[in-house]
Amino acid sequence: MLASTSPAHAIRGAFLDFIADPFYEDEVASLRYISDGLMVVAAGKIVELGDYSSLQDKYSDLPTTDYTGRLIMPGMIDTHIHYPQYEMIASYGEQLLEWLNKYTFPTEAKFSDRTYAQKIASLFLDELLKNGTTTALVFATVHPASVDAFFEEADRRNLRMICGKVLMDRHAPEYLTDTAETAYHDSKRLIEKWHNHNRLLYAITPRFAVTSTEAQLKVAGQLLAEFPDVYLHTHLSENRKEVAWVAELFPQSQGYLDVYDQAGLVGSRSVFAHGIHLTEAEFSRLSAAKAAISFCPTSNLFLGSGLFKLHEAKSSQRPVKVGLGTDVGAGTSFSLLHSASAAYQVVQLQQQSLSAFKALFLATLGGARALSLEDKLGNFDPGKEADFIVLNLQATPLMATRNSGFPTQSLSDLADSVFGLIILGDDRAVQAVYVAGELAHQL
Amino acid sequence: MLASTSPAHAIRGAFLDFIADPFYEDEVASLRYISDGLMVVAAGKIVELGDYSSLQDKYSDLPTTDYTGRLIMPGMIDTHIHYPQYEMIASYGEQLLEWLNKYTFPTEAKFSDRTYAQKIASLFLDELLKNGTTTALVFATVHPASVDAFFEEADRRNLRMICGKVLMDRHAPEYLTDTAETAYHDSKRLIEKWHNHNRLLYAITPRFAVTSTEAQLKVAGQLLAEFPDVYLHTHLSENRKEVAWVAELFPQSQGYLDVYDQAGLVGSRSVFAHGIHLTEAEFSRLSAAKAAISFCPTSNLFLGSGLFKLHEAKSSQRPVKVGLGTDVGAGTSFSLLHSASAAYQVVQLQQQSLSAFKALFLATLGGARALSLEDKLGNFDPGKEADFIVLNLQATPLMATRNSGFPTQSLSDLADSVFGLIILGDDRAVQAVYVAGELAHQL
Repeated sequence: MLASTSPAHAIRGAFLDFIADPFYEDEVASLRYISDGLMVVAAGKIVELGDYSSLQDKYSDLPTTDYTGRLIMPGMIDTHIHYPQYEMIASYGEQLLEWLNKYTFPTEAKFSDRTYAQKIASLFLDELLKNGTTTALVFATVHPASVDAFFEEADRRNLRMICGKVLMDRHAPEYLTDTAETAYHDSKRLIEKWHNHNRLLYAITPRFAVTSTEAQLKVAGQLLAEFPDVYLHTHLSENRKEVAWVAELFPQSQGYLDVYDQAGLVGSRSVFAHGIHLTEAEFSRLSAAKAAISFCPTSNLFLGSGLFKLHEAKSSQRPVKVGLGTDVGAGTSFSLLHSASAAYQVVQLQQQSLSAFKALFLATLGGARALSLEDKLGNFDPGKEADFIVLNLQATPLMATRNSGFPTQSLSDLADSVFGLIILGDDRAVQAVYVAGELAHQL
Repeated sequence: MLASTSPAHAIRGAFLDFIADPFYEDEVASLRYISDGLMVVAAGKIVELGDYSSLQDKYSDLPTTDYTGRLIMPGMIDTHIHYPQYEMIASYGEQLLEWLNKYTFPTEAKFSDRTYAQKIASLFLDELLKNGTTTALVFATVHPASVDAFFEEADRRNLRMICGKVLMDRHAPEYLTDTAETAYHDSKRLIEKWHNHNRLLYAITPRFAVTSTEAQLKVAGQLLAEFPDVYLHTHLSENRKEVAWVAELFPQSQGYLDVYDQAGLVGSRSVFAHGIHLTEAEFSRLSAAKAAISFCPTSNLFLGSGLFKLHEAKSSQRPVKVGLGTDVGAGTSFSLLHSASAAYQVVQLQQQSLSAFKALFLATLGGARALSLEDKLGNFDPGKEADFIVLNLQATPLMATRNSGFPTQSLSDLADSVFGLIILGDDRAVQAVYVAGELAHQL
């Protein structure tokens, strides 16, 4: 699909987005809130956002959709998710390594079937949209056809999506493994076919250090060197047994992150899911490399992996880029509102807190920065792509009572209402979703 | 309202309930699953449950509601919740003691207004029903009128509900405190008015050891001695700072539970919310006294209180009765499905697991036992009160794919489907709710 050529139109409502990182800036200075705003969109991009009162005359000729009473935010960004695990979400009772063998590998085997892959990709993308997620960094399976299926469905919806073929040449069933050589050639072919095709981007995707030989990790590094603007997407330090196994498998490494580093995989377009058991030295290295961590709290709680040290990762001394990820199928919901709520719990269990604004930053501009997409997505700056969502903070009777004060002009009331949204909200609060300026989902 | 006099009718569908405790018995032996069953209900009670094929002729004259494709379970039982906190659910950013002062006390002050109390009681009970909860052990506020309002609304819906006036004579704002003496007289009057009135039961409800003087706790014990079939409902060992404060306030006690014990408050009708930081000696004492703990995982995660040691509490050496509680407003959802899902996370973070059947036991028969109501509620034994819920395991597109195998005859497939229900389900999965045999809510 080509970039949207939709005519200019305007959207009225309350608008909230972030213009700086509230972990480092004053929260009030980091956000932009317009309680009665007008946003003008044309050709799939944002033209202007301001007070309704000041823009209404200038744009009085434009068709305007009125969402008064609703909160409009940038489309949410999921920095780590597995589309083939759509149908195995909520699989019972194991921690990471057993869970992979018992549920994940048998499910992923089905994706050698292109028709099946296409069906699941379509369900998966619809579920993302319904939950207000417009961009995601996505694992496919080892099968190149699984990537083709995903990108075709994403392209059909004109979504900005990042995906890649899984590299896995050991410690997995034979029917799911490739080799260093096929990993190279298949990935290269897929990059040439899909990377920068319309809104699609490619990620070189070794599953994790356990399932790739050193030779295969080196091939991933070689691909990154050849295609420096593609992504590197993998898992890191999720589970204690996994960390111990990696240390055994790579006795010459200085730790888990170093395994990737030695293969040339730690750079500014690298996104590592989890990072629960990272050392201070590893946080420092990630910071220096401008690499990102995807914090996946519903998954971390579901698999019992542990509590991500969010405030340590975001330390201003050596800041690490962090986005939120659902990590479906180990994550228990497609909703980044649920992920934000679980993030709050993870932080509370560490006797710290996480404001609603910081959580929403992670789900929007923070995610865009983690994916090096802040020039295109993450807030309502003019020129950015017009992916945005319309939130109903009174979507259920309970939310209507809890959030009866919205819309408000006061930022402290807003903080309270959006916290209520995070804790109580789900896809029922996502009233409409716009992709490149066009309505893509509505309740 | 009087007990139901509704004529006999029958319900067809798949039925699941528990006849023993799966923490101590083999899971298969502890449950009853009828994939195509018929349940006959008359005068608000269960008459018979069996295979449809074997009962259809016997009851062919009865009007039958067909829920084929749905799972019918006993109404869920919430063993700890605060109705006045309905509108302050999801209040931001604090741990227990600060949270009480900042949000709870100001909110509870509003319940001196009887009209307001009635409005919130009504919203609260509708929300419980919508989520499939038909019985709860409920905190009111310090105001006797808050109890009157609650019981009137519960009675109007013919619900089996337990509630009580909060006792609180120190460490709370003056507008929310009573005295030992008024606590005695007000509670006594309310017991005489409401306890065993239709389906209503009373609980003597000191908030917790911090907010009651020794004199007031003794008064609570005196009431329990005078009315031995009323309940005792309070909080216990929720938060580390709270535990330390109680130790300071009661230097002569052997620990938190002992404060209650010395006042005569630890018996077989005592229900203690939380119990996160209990010692082995305290578990033993609870076991010996046949007292119950209400495990409130969404609240424990939200306030960062800690991880309840469920498997220790349920040790077969000195078993403690445990039910699930939502603890709204510190709990984040009225749904005991969400509580079951959070319970799974709490257990997983301790590197253990919790089967779907064990979780559903806690939400039904386990809750009935925790509330000493197993002669009336908790499963489908003939003669029990006909509170039951009709669950749609395919309530959303995601659940429909995940649980496409339901209904099933296989118990392992059932385990998988109900686990999917727990993790992915919410009030949308609660298609219908029956109270004393009559339809009380449907989607």
